[in-house]
Amino acid sequence: MANNTKTAINPTRAEDYATWYQEVIKESGMAENSVVRGCIIIKQWGCAIWENIRYTLDNMIKETGHENVYFPMFIPLSFMQKEASHIEGFAKECAVVTHRKLETDEKGNLIPSGELEEPLVIRPTSEVVIAEAYSRWINSYRDLPLLCNQWANVVRWEMRTRPFLRTAEFLWQEGHTAHATKEEAEQETLLMLEVYRKLFEDHLAIPVYTGFKTENEKFPGADVTYCLEAMMQDIRALQIGTSHFLGQNFAKAFDIMFQSYNEKQEYVWTTSWGVSTRIIGGLIMVHSDDDGLVLPPRIAPLHIIIIPIIHKVEDENLVRDYCEKLADAVSNTLFDGKKTMVKVDYSDKRHGAKNWDWIKKGVPLRIEIGRKEVDSGMISYSRRDQISGTKHCVKMQDFVGGVPNLLTGIQHHLLDKAKTFMNNNVKRAKTAEEFYSLFANGQRHFVLAHWAQNDDVETRLKEELKVTPRCIPLRHIDDLGQCIFTGKEACPLTLFAMAY
Amino acid sequence: MANNTKTAINPTRAEDYATWYQEVIKESGMAENSVVRGCIIIKQWGCAIWENIRYTLDNMIKETGHENVYFPMFIPLSFMQKEASHIEGFAKECAVVTHRKLETDEKGNLIPSGELEEPLVIRPTSEVVIAEAYSRWINSYRDLPLLCNQWANVVRWEMRTRPFLRTAEFLWQEGHTAHATKEEAEQETLLMLEVYRKLFEDHLAIPVYTGFKTENEKFPGADVTYCLEAMMQDIRALQIGTSHFLGQNFAKAFDIMFQSYNEKQEYVWTTSWGVSTRIIGGLIMVHSDDDGLVLPPRIAPLHIIIIPIIHKVEDENLVRDYCEKLADAVSNTLFDGKKTMVKVDYSDKRHGAKNWDWIKKGVPLRIEIGRKEVDSGMISYSRRDQISGTKHCVKMQDFVGGVPNLLTGIQHHLLDKAKTFMNNNVKRAKTAEEFYSLFANGQRHFVLAHWAQNDDVETRLKEELKVTPRCIPLRHIDDLGQCIFTGKEACPLTLFAMAY
Repeated sequence: MANNTKTAINPTRAEDYATWYQEVIKESGMAENSVVRGCIIIKQWGCAIWENIRYTLDNMIKETGHENVYFPMFIPLSFMQKEASHIEGFAKECAVVTHRKLETDEKGNLIPSGELEEPLVIRPTSEVVIAEAYSRWINSYRDLPLLCNQWANVVRWEMRTRPFLRTAEFLWQEGHTAHATKEEAEQETLLMLEVYRKLFEDHLAIPVYTGFKTENEKFPGADVTYCLEAMMQDIRALQIGTSHFLGQNFAKAFDIMFQSYNEKQEYVWTTSWGVSTRIIGGLIMVHSDDDGLVLPPRIAPLHIIIIPIIHKVEDENLVRDYCEKLADAVSNTLFDGKKTMVKVDYSDKRHGAKNWDWIKKGVPLRIEIGRKEVDSGMISYSRRDQISGTKHCVKMQDFVGGVPNLLTGIQHHLLDKAKTFMNNNVKRAKTAEEFYSLFANGQRHFVLAHWAQNDDVETRLKEELKVTPRCIPLRHIDDLGQCIFTGKEACPLTLFAMAY
Repeated sequence: MANNTKTAINPTRAEDYATWYQEVIKESGMAENSVVRGCIIIKQWGCAIWENIRYTLDNMIKETGHENVYFPMFIPLSFMQKEASHIEGFAKECAVVTHRKLETDEKGNLIPSGELEEPLVIRPTSEVVIAEAYSRWINSYRDLPLLCNQWANVVRWEMRTRPFLRTAEFLWQEGHTAHATKEEAEQETLLMLEVYRKLFEDHLAIPVYTGFKTENEKFPGADVTYCLEAMMQDIRALQIGTSHFLGQNFAKAFDIMFQSYNEKQEYVWTTSWGVSTRIIGGLIMVHSDDDGLVLPPRIAPLHIIIIPIIHKVEDENLVRDYCEKLADAVSNTLFDGKKTMVKVDYSDKRHGAKNWDWIKKGVPLRIEIGRKEVDSGMISYSRRDQISGTKHCVKMQDFVGGVPNLLTGIQHHLLDKAKTFMNNNVKRAKTAEEFYSLFANGQRHFVLAHWAQNDDVETRLKEELKVTPRCIPLRHIDDLGQCIFTGKEACPLTLFAMAY
């Protein structure tokens, strides 16, 4: 905060978390609502963040042996029906194309025309079109494993939308693989879960619980849905990625068979896994503060912003030269194996306004350079992850040499802070009473409890507390005990929370 | 060719060019038709080529000061109508979403349900949605120029489709900029034309004619459409990129105004420019031969394939080690500022089949390694741009050191070859008779002729010869003369051809 009475984002998190979230997005220039209900425009800053996430993850996906493909966004209506639980899961939120042109009616209004013989659904996900292709691409064990991924836009016509967290159209990647054995497909599902965990923890500084979903929360068509759940600052859970073991459900629905090494015809085993622009929603809600966005350096489009302060016209060239010299030196340092991204803000604004703009955008380091710095050979910088107002003064060459460590320090600090916050808000409930008390009076926690996975309890908790089982965490997989609601023995420890 | 009687692609170019094109795509594993009419599946090899093009161009777009954004793919019907010539140009090929869910009727059939109040058009291009946002984003001269680009899928419901060249859904980038003055917008249009020219000539080894379109061939809503026209091996023209000066047409339709430096309210001047997966169609038709795809090294997903030849089991480890040593050494060389991409093909196929697979995929260099090479310390390589059968024998270390030069040589050879082919097939027609004779008996040429740009001649040429004016080339802009069809004086030199 600039001083103790004013924050850059109004309202603050404590005052109104939901509105604070919208304002952080608006003030950082990440996105805005579009004229089409539930769809957002991803603006320059949001797009640059998404591109960094995409670039990082794309490399990880390729390093684990996958290749990218691109399938059409249209799915014939008849295809959607082939896997029963899949269509049941998506029928209520499908955008449907029914016409292929426009014409003007007698009143001069534009109307759809040229009705299609078979309506086309815009992909809510691509399992069915990809399964159809796999049934043609796969003939022998030599064609397996088949490891594909695609980056695409998908549409799910949700009624309640929120920028990044839930939008009608969103961007994502979806991996689709086919394997000769159940074991291999299961390993793949877990491998990609681990790839996602690394993306979140190592790059986005977001600690997660990995685990698997209960029957009711599974992906439509999956045998097992693994997921990653992160804790937002309002102590709600965000499902931030999923990896599905699809068994032979799609293989049987689309007849994906292969000749095994022993010359038998067998069905393949498939997986699918995806993360989306929802990640950006998580990024905002894990790290940002009442002054706006806070970005982990590894994902920031810009690491360092230099703001020239020119009070007198005769100082202008001196200050500019010093800024350029600093920017040059910094851009020759490497952070995370790549060039450090630095920019001098010469825009036609007051320096105070510039400073606040970059605070709200979450740039990790800000440097103000005036005549004083030029004369002393010093620079003064602020870290976005520290309370604003804290300035550090160092010699220019010391700063330049220390940039990689400084950025790494910010990256680690953000992860540590998020981990501590999560750990402080995870509680274990030994009884149903304890469980209820942890959600009493509008309190929120992540609550671990042994639970028998019965529908009655699940429905009751949802209705009474708005709490759902998020996952059965892998880290507690061996911790079995008596269900706190039913008394049943040997039940897994389940993670419960209010969720986005 | 493997020998003088057999080619890898059947039919050959001479036998049936259109089918040859389809077969090159199929045999290289670049793409295939999907179950949805007019849409293709871009497979692994095609996707990797597109990613390289995208990566290269994206850097060029950013280096010229543009930032990426992402707009929704849905356009409200009413928006399409705001710019009159724009809707006229796209109304006949728009995919229209009319429903937002599916339900099961009494017969058990899935049908569209939840009709939308206003139908949504899937973007055929994004001028109108972006213009709406610009009208809000731009207030003052300080907000200008506004330089955005997006990578997206678009849909144009064409009736006659061909993989990559014309598909219902395709991938592209579309740049959209707004400027304070006409001159600045015109400069931007030409700047991006030049960026595209560099992409094609320097990276894809495709020589082009740059120029502007006649009135009838302009983009719907543009004042001037600049284009890049390339010559395919069947001597047809392919429009491979466009850059539009939109004047104030969209500014007026969407009320995009700014307060000028002199505090007056003025309309902005806008541009748009785009290239698409159509580029891949051009890449195929410019360089490929009767053995399949030929890729310029700068855009190839793989530069060098190493094929182990193992006749005796006892040689296996020796050959494998030698292959790995070679691959290691090569991957440490730099081509074009990046790591040389090399792979050893250990797949479960005969080495002859492997060799043909990589020929058909167009990998620039192929190396076969057997016991003989291991013992002699030599390697034997084939260049994809030379007649197959030509092998070069060199010492391993000489080969490794020479890789960057070898790849650069192939890159230049392909460009030179394409330039020579184009130049040999461009003719100048001084009279209407000469013009007709150049297209007589199924002959094709690129023909330059002075022409008055009158509709009658344009219609007649299209009907009689299937020939259209492709552009008024910038390189001949000062060459004015008498129209060969009408006798009118001081007419620009126009490029005519049969086109895709």
